[in-house]
Amino acid sequence: MNGKTVVLSGGVGGAKLVLGLSYVLEGDALIVACNTGDDFDHLGLRVCPDIDSVLYALSNLSDQQRGWGRKDESWAFMSAVEHLQGPTWFKLGDGDLATHVMRTDWLRQGMTLTEATSELAARWRIKTYVVPMSDELVRTIVQTEVGELEFQDYFVGQQCAPAVSGFRFDGIEKALPQVDIMNALNAGPDAVIIAPSNPYVSIDPILNLVGMHDVLKASRAPIVAVSPIIGGQAIKGPVAKMMTELGHDVSALGIARHYQGLIDGFIIDECDADLSADIQSLGIEPKVLPAIMTDLESRISLAQATLLFASELKL
Amino acid sequence: MNGKTVVLSGGVGGAKLVLGLSYVLEGDALIVACNTGDDFDHLGLRVCPDIDSVLYALSNLSDQQRGWGRKDESWAFMSAVEHLQGPTWFKLGDGDLATHVMRTDWLRQGMTLTEATSELAARWRIKTYVVPMSDELVRTIVQTEVGELEFQDYFVGQQCAPAVSGFRFDGIEKALPQVDIMNALNAGPDAVIIAPSNPYVSIDPILNLVGMHDVLKASRAPIVAVSPIIGGQAIKGPVAKMMTELGHDVSALGIARHYQGLIDGFIIDECDADLSADIQSLGIEPKVLPAIMTDLESRISLAQATLLFASELKL
Repeated sequence: MNGKTVVLSGGVGGAKLVLGLSYVLEGDALIVACNTGDDFDHLGLRVCPDIDSVLYALSNLSDQQRGWGRKDESWAFMSAVEHLQGPTWFKLGDGDLATHVMRTDWLRQGMTLTEATSELAARWRIKTYVVPMSDELVRTIVQTEVGELEFQDYFVGQQCAPAVSGFRFDGIEKALPQVDIMNALNAGPDAVIIAPSNPYVSIDPILNLVGMHDVLKASRAPIVAVSPIIGGQAIKGPVAKMMTELGHDVSALGIARHYQGLIDGFIIDECDADLSADIQSLGIEPKVLPAIMTDLESRISLAQATLLFASELKL
Repeated sequence: MNGKTVVLSGGVGGAKLVLGLSYVLEGDALIVACNTGDDFDHLGLRVCPDIDSVLYALSNLSDQQRGWGRKDESWAFMSAVEHLQGPTWFKLGDGDLATHVMRTDWLRQGMTLTEATSELAARWRIKTYVVPMSDELVRTIVQTEVGELEFQDYFVGQQCAPAVSGFRFDGIEKALPQVDIMNALNAGPDAVIIAPSNPYVSIDPILNLVGMHDVLKASRAPIVAVSPIIGGQAIKGPVAKMMTELGHDVSALGIARHYQGLIDGFIIDECDADLSADIQSLGIEPKVLPAIMTDLESRISLAQATLLFASELKL
């Protein structure tokens, strides 16, 4: 294998697979393109939830129980904000805050988000190359029964309660993919892996960047997605609820249909083996694997199996 | 009494007297002008140490043991900054950070520092009117044996170690006093009180604002200073060290000489009673009082005595 492996990733689910991949591929063989559609400015600080989920996973700072943010986190800042009658709907832990404060300071000094992300990664001694999907601002807008909502308002503020009818990515028509992602794709990558992230709000923003679809197709690399739906349920987050509201099958097959025409292979869990034929009929090669990542070992196993599957598709 | 009492204040020492005064004077009878020469931008956040010392004292958030910052403070943010190899020389507590983050956000949204300070005060239910000395940027530069140093670099970074030869207030020639301070002074205040703060770096920035000297003289209000030097020692901070390095008497008399020509009365502690005649010979009326503020009771007592002294001088 001479090229790179490019991973398109959202937050926590993607971060798990990326962590597994980081054990299998050397630093420069892997490039992780993180969704930035969820990013927002809160209390004047730039918060990048998906980038941070990946960085925290790779630096062993993730909280495993809570499922988001940093382990051993404390909340004294939030208490003081509450005492000041400031906004408390979005929780910023004391440790997490250091990430946002330093990134925001760097961005204000003129760094790109790519540079700020690399700076964070370097200081945490992360060897995997993690980049934002774009250095330009893209903001996911959720179209709901109560009108358009900014993503974090929908996701955290309203706890995903309003029924979803669609999505819009503000700024997407002018946002180029991050340059190293484009270079890796143009150079002929070994594989493109779509992490088990929410297809609507984590992966679609990446796929809809200017020129992204074309370069993915032109790359001739095998494109493999890992299902975020297992046994008809989402491992985490609102994807199952969204599929219901959008009128799609809440199943790995529903996810496969979403990616039809783009992906070559699709990894589903053993409990969804009966969907294989239907997936194949979409022109997508299914692969049945233990796809639930409960610990480091299963993350590494799934990463290895995903890469192997991609290499088989390439032949 | 019809006018206001205007207090010129630095950090912790001034905050103690201001707290005492807040028990004696109704909210709108007192206006506290805080030095902003120590303010600086750290990690992209606007830090205003003297304003915060006064606000924390008035909201009962001050730490009494440590002598600065907030009580029950924690330091998880600083640990995370250290892990990120960020700057750790200036300690920002987790609770303190909420103040800086919210103020910085408000300033970026277009609030003046006066408005941001009032907003903080209102949310902490502080009734005393606390304002920055000016809404324009003034930055104290300490001239030392190792060259010019920004104030916080000298004060915190270098722990006041380099010998001082003078001071410079960047931006002072264009900085107008905050408008409500000017209005109070122009309206004929009952008294102007110079808090027991460092005369060089806490009070002189205020006195050197454009037009400040003139309006103080024109106000005909009694101007009373409280000595920050008691028994030849500073209650807190580098004032005694600075006086030595500048070749001045390290005594209440040295402080009185510094304010000669401006103040009408000077409050010294009982242990400095022997300096009374020398102070009087400077054309300044001395007042001997218990001037060490160890607890709330002594703060209120000194505040009452200071106001009484000022009213006697006015007659």
